Amino acid sequence: MLLVYLDNSSTTKPCVSAIKNITTCLEENWGNPSSLHSLGIKAESVLSDTRSAAAKILSCDMDEIYFTSGGTEANNISVLGAATALVRRGKRIVTTSIEHPSVLETCNHLERQGFEIVRLHPDSDGNISSRAIKSAITKDTILVSMMLVNNEIGTIYPIKVAADAVKTVASPALIHCDAVQAFGKMNIKPKALGIDLMSVSGHKIHGPKGVGILYKSKKARINPHVFGGSQEKTLRSGTEPVPAIAGLLGALTELNIEDSYKIVARVNSYARIKLGQIDNIVINSAENTLPYILNFSVTGYRSETMLHFLESNNVYVSSGSACAKGKGSYVLHEMKLPTDRIDSALRISFSKYSSFQDVDRLCESLLDGIKSIRQSYNR
Amino acid sequence: MLLVYLDNSSTTKPCVSAIKNITTCLEENWGNPSSLHSLGIKAESVLSDTRSAAAKILSCDMDEIYFTSGGTEANNISVLGAATALVRRGKRIVTTSIEHPSVLETCNHLERQGFEIVRLHPDSDGNISSRAIKSAITKDTILVSMMLVNNEIGTIYPIKVAADAVKTVASPALIHCDAVQAFGKMNIKPKALGIDLMSVSGHKIHGPKGVGILYKSKKARINPHVFGGSQEKTLRSGTEPVPAIAGLLGALTELNIEDSYKIVARVNSYARIKLGQIDNIVINSAENTLPYILNFSVTGYRSETMLHFLESNNVYVSSGSACAKGKGSYVLHEMKLPTDRIDSALRISFSKYSSFQDVDRLCESLLDGIKSIRQSYNR
Repeated sequence: MLLVYLDNSSTTKPCVSAIKNITTCLEENWGNPSSLHSLGIKAESVLSDTRSAAAKILSCDMDEIYFTSGGTEANNISVLGAATALVRRGKRIVTTSIEHPSVLETCNHLERQGFEIVRLHPDSDGNISSRAIKSAITKDTILVSMMLVNNEIGTIYPIKVAADAVKTVASPALIHCDAVQAFGKMNIKPKALGIDLMSVSGHKIHGPKGVGILYKSKKARINPHVFGGSQEKTLRSGTEPVPAIAGLLGALTELNIEDSYKIVARVNSYARIKLGQIDNIVINSAENTLPYILNFSVTGYRSETMLHFLESNNVYVSSGSACAKGKGSYVLHEMKLPTDRIDSALRISFSKYSSFQDVDRLCESLLDGIKSIRQSYNR
Repeated sequence: MLLVYLDNSSTTKPCVSAIKNITTCLEENWGNPSSLHSLGIKAESVLSDTRSAAAKILSCDMDEIYFTSGGTEANNISVLGAATALVRRGKRIVTTSIEHPSVLETCNHLERQGFEIVRLHPDSDGNISSRAIKSAITKDTILVSMMLVNNEIGTIYPIKVAADAVKTVASPALIHCDAVQAFGKMNIKPKALGIDLMSVSGHKIHGPKGVGILYKSKKARINPHVFGGSQEKTLRSGTEPVPAIAGLLGALTELNIEDSYKIVARVNSYARIKLGQIDNIVINSAENTLPYILNFSVTGYRSETMLHFLESNNVYVSSGSACAKGKGSYVLHEMKLPTDRIDSALRISFSKYSSFQDVDRLCESLLDGIKSIRQSYNR
C-alpha cells in the first residue's frame, strides 16, 4: 500500500536537491567554516550561498540571515534576545495564547523573570482580532511575538497590524514572527510586513532537520542567547551545521511558492468537499486559512485511536502538533471548541507532493475507521 | 598533490558509516521523532540507538545522554543550566582561563549577571595544578567547569581532583567537563571521574557538524536553557537533528579508541622528532599531552603567513582554535609564552588517518616555507 503522508506540518520528506547537497558536502566539503585555510573558506561558501538564496526569497540583505539549529532555537534567540536587550525600555511583551511551545514556553520563562506577558486569545475560528492587537500594544511594549500561520489550524495572523500599531504608539517594540509554517508556502517580505525578527525551519520545507534561519533586520538589536566562538556575528555561537545548511540550500532552490500553493489549494478544496461528505466530520479550519493545513474532528472517535487506525492503512496524519506529543490541543481549547471536537481532532497537512488520490485514500480509511472502531466498541 | 589534513581538532572528515547513515536517514527515515505514528517511532529509534551506543562507550545509562546541536550548545546548557539551578546555594563558579570560548564567554556572561567566576591559570606547560584546583573549590562553589583536554595544546586536566575536592568540602557544586577534544580519543567514564555534566561534539570524531551530546548524570539537576516542545526531556527543546544523530551513530560505531590512540601516538612521536630537526621550531605542547594535538612555533614566521604557505602545498594546519578565527592564541598567552612564539604558533592535530608521510610532507613544506618566506622578505 502506497504511503499517504499528510503530516507535512510535522516534518517533510527531504527533497532530492537537499539530499544530494548534503551528501556532496559530507564527502567533499567538510571543512570548518571558521578555519582560516581554503578548506574553511570552501565550507564558508556553503553558508554564504545559502544566506544569499534565503535573502533573495525574503527580499532582504544576506547579512540579515543567521543560521540556527532549527525553528525552536530561532524563536528562543528572538524572544529572549529581544526581551533582555530592551528590558530597560519596558517589560511588556504581547503575544498570543496559540503560539508554538517554543514561543509560549519562552514567554512563560520570561514571565517568571518578571516580564509582563500579554496573551491575546483567538476567536472560535482561530483568528486574533486586529482590534485586540492594537489595544494590547502600548508605549512600554518591547516585543510582539506572533506567528504568521498557526501550526494546528492554518489561520493567518495580521502581523502587519502589530507592526503598524508599534509605530503608531511609538513603542520600542521589536516584531518577532514565527514563520515556521508560513515560509515557503506564501510570499513573505519581512520588511514590507514590518517584521524585525523571523524564524524559519529547514525540515518543514523539504530540507533536513537540524537547521533553521533567523532573519534579523539590520536595525534590530538583540542580545545573544548562546555564547562561544562568535559564529553568526556572535548571535549564535557554535560551528554551523554545514551539511544541513547545504541541504537547506537544496530545499530553497527547489521552492516554487506559487506553483506549490496552487497544487495545495486544489487538494485542500477537494479534501473539504470529500471530508464534508462524511458523517461525524466537522472541519475546524476556517475557509480563510492557509490551504496547507486542514484541521477537522471525527466526532465520537478519539484522535489517537483514529490516527493509529489510519496508520494501519499507511495513511499518516497528526492529532495536533508533533511538539505536543499526545496532549489535547491547546489551540483548539483556546478556540473554545467543545471537548468532543477537541478530543477527536485530526490535522492533515499537505505538500506540493499531495494529490487527490491521497485525499481519497484518507477518506476511505476514515470511513473504514468509523466503521471498524464503532464495531470494536459494539463487540 | 595529495591532501595532508592536520587540522582534526578543528573538524574531521566524516567517516563512511556516518555518511551512509545520514543518507539512509534522509531517504528512508525522515519522520519527526515526536510524531505519534510509526514514521515518528522509526525516527525515534535512531535517537535511542545512538543514545544506547554513546551510553555504552561512557559506561552510563542511556537516559543520561541528551542530544544537542553541538559542543557549544552542550557547554552552554551545562554552565548556564547549573548556574541558574544552583544560584540559591551560592554564586561561585570555578573554571580555567584556557577553556573553549563556549565556556569562557558563558562564564563572562554569568559574571555580568553577578556570579563570581574564579579562573585558574595554567603554568608554562599549560597545566593547571591540582593544588590550585583544591584551594579554589570552597563550600559555596556551585559549579566547576574544566575541559578534559585543551583544544590548542592538548594538555590533560585533572578533573577527578576537582570532583574529589567538591566532595571533601561538601559543596553542592556540579562538575562540568568539556570533553570535546577528549571524547573518542581516550577512555572517559564520567561516573568514575566524578563528572556530572559532559559535552561532546559529533564533528570532532568523524561525525557530522550540527550534533553534540550532553551527558548529564541522573542525580544532577539543571535548568533548561532552550524552551519549547519538551524534547530531550525538556532539557533541549526543538526537533532533534535526526540525520546528524544517525551520522553520529555511524561515527560512534567506527570508534576504536585504543587502536586510534596507538596510531596517533606513533605519528606524534615521529612528528616531534622531525619537527625538532628544523631550526626555528619550538614545541609548545608538553610531553604529557594527548598525542592528538601538537602545538609548535616557527619563530620568526607569523602563524597566518606560514599557514597560508602550507596551504599552497595542500597541507592544512591551524593557527590555533578554529573558533578564535585569526586572533592570537589566548591559551599560549595564558601560558605566558614569549610574544614571538605566540605569533608564530601552529597547531597540528591528528586523526587515525594520519601517517608518517603526512608528517614528512608537513616538514618539507615548513622548510620550503622558511626558505620561501625568508626569501620574499629579502627581495
